[in-house]
Amino acid sequence: MNYEINSRNKVLRAKERGVYDKESVYKILDAGKICHVGITMEGQPFVIPMSYARIDNSIILHGALNSRLCSSLREGIPACVTVTHLDGLVLARSTFHHSMNYRSVVAFGTAREIDDKQKKLEAAEALVEFLTPGRTTDCRAPNKKELNATSMIEFTIEQASAKVRTGGPIDLEKDLDLDVWAGVVPIKEQFGEWIAADDLKSEIDYPDYKNLY
Amino acid sequence: MNYEINSRNKVLRAKERGVYDKESVYKILDAGKICHVGITMEGQPFVIPMSYARIDNSIILHGALNSRLCSSLREGIPACVTVTHLDGLVLARSTFHHSMNYRSVVAFGTAREIDDKQKKLEAAEALVEFLTPGRTTDCRAPNKKELNATSMIEFTIEQASAKVRTGGPIDLEKDLDLDVWAGVVPIKEQFGEWIAADDLKSEIDYPDYKNLY
Repeated sequence: MNYEINSRNKVLRAKERGVYDKESVYKILDAGKICHVGITMEGQPFVIPMSYARIDNSIILHGALNSRLCSSLREGIPACVTVTHLDGLVLARSTFHHSMNYRSVVAFGTAREIDDKQKKLEAAEALVEFLTPGRTTDCRAPNKKELNATSMIEFTIEQASAKVRTGGPIDLEKDLDLDVWAGVVPIKEQFGEWIAADDLKSEIDYPDYKNLY
Repeated sequence: MNYEINSRNKVLRAKERGVYDKESVYKILDAGKICHVGITMEGQPFVIPMSYARIDNSIILHGALNSRLCSSLREGIPACVTVTHLDGLVLARSTFHHSMNYRSVVAFGTAREIDDKQKKLEAAEALVEFLTPGRTTDCRAPNKKELNATSMIEFTIEQASAKVRTGGPIDLEKDLDLDVWAGVVPIKEQFGEWIAADDLKSEIDYPDYKNLY
């Protein structure tokens, strides 16, 4: 199903790279770990990196109860949430045709605070599960004090667009004969060896979900 | 040297992680490949991923001459440019104390179009050199038509803050005895094997700067 397309989310540059269906948007969101949240306060835009989780058509965010960002978001001001994956550097034969391979989602909507206690708990767990599936079966659940200190925010996606570039450089015909290497430098996210906490009890083994990394 | 600190760039949450000196800010910017640019149009914030280059205290951006973002930026509206590196997932013994290791810069300023032809050329080359040092000695320089089709934007950093988290989880004393693994899942950017363009002449070898990746 597609998001409604209008001037807010229509991809104007490299139009052929724009997609508007929820499935494509969700796939890019689900592959991410941080988003960049944009809000405007007194005419000044702020772009803040945040962890997130997707639940259905919503993006869950969180922060300290009295943080500026959360205070603003829960007033229901217009916001923009962007997630970007850089997949490669595209080296063309000319400076001008250099590019990048990427997948990105720009989502527009408004946010509201999650007040319901059960939903708030589910949001807190979703934030951890989104990054580390299985983790919340192991670790201690949030207590009342912790939940009270946290603002859980639900950003509902009203409109979104995804933009994707893949493949090699697109050079001018007349440049193909130049003696310069052209192609793609692939980039991917790599997980390193897990580093145990200094105070980890020695008998504790890695969890099963380690094999996901 | 520090940026001036006021309500716009003061780190309010986890204050001890906030730094304001140019050296730290530049180091984080120089390690990045894409930034997220925030502008506001008719009350709606937009957060757009863009490639960039740092030259001194400026961030160079570019786009098609008639793109919405470039048109807005060159009017000199307030903007925010954010660069984030995700360095690891921090797995704590409790849901609440999960965190991330990261380095981020949030920069505030205004942008202006680069009109001077020589400076525009230098900006175009800086965008490529920033990602692939040495590349512009190999590839064809932009011609007049290409430069005319492109808007080169100089965003001057008026204020900025950097925020950095490193290290393991910080758990509550009472949780240290829980039987759950705790520590850090490191994340880093990994370059893959270079993929030659389909139409690359067979006799062309990799460039010297390949060893930087």
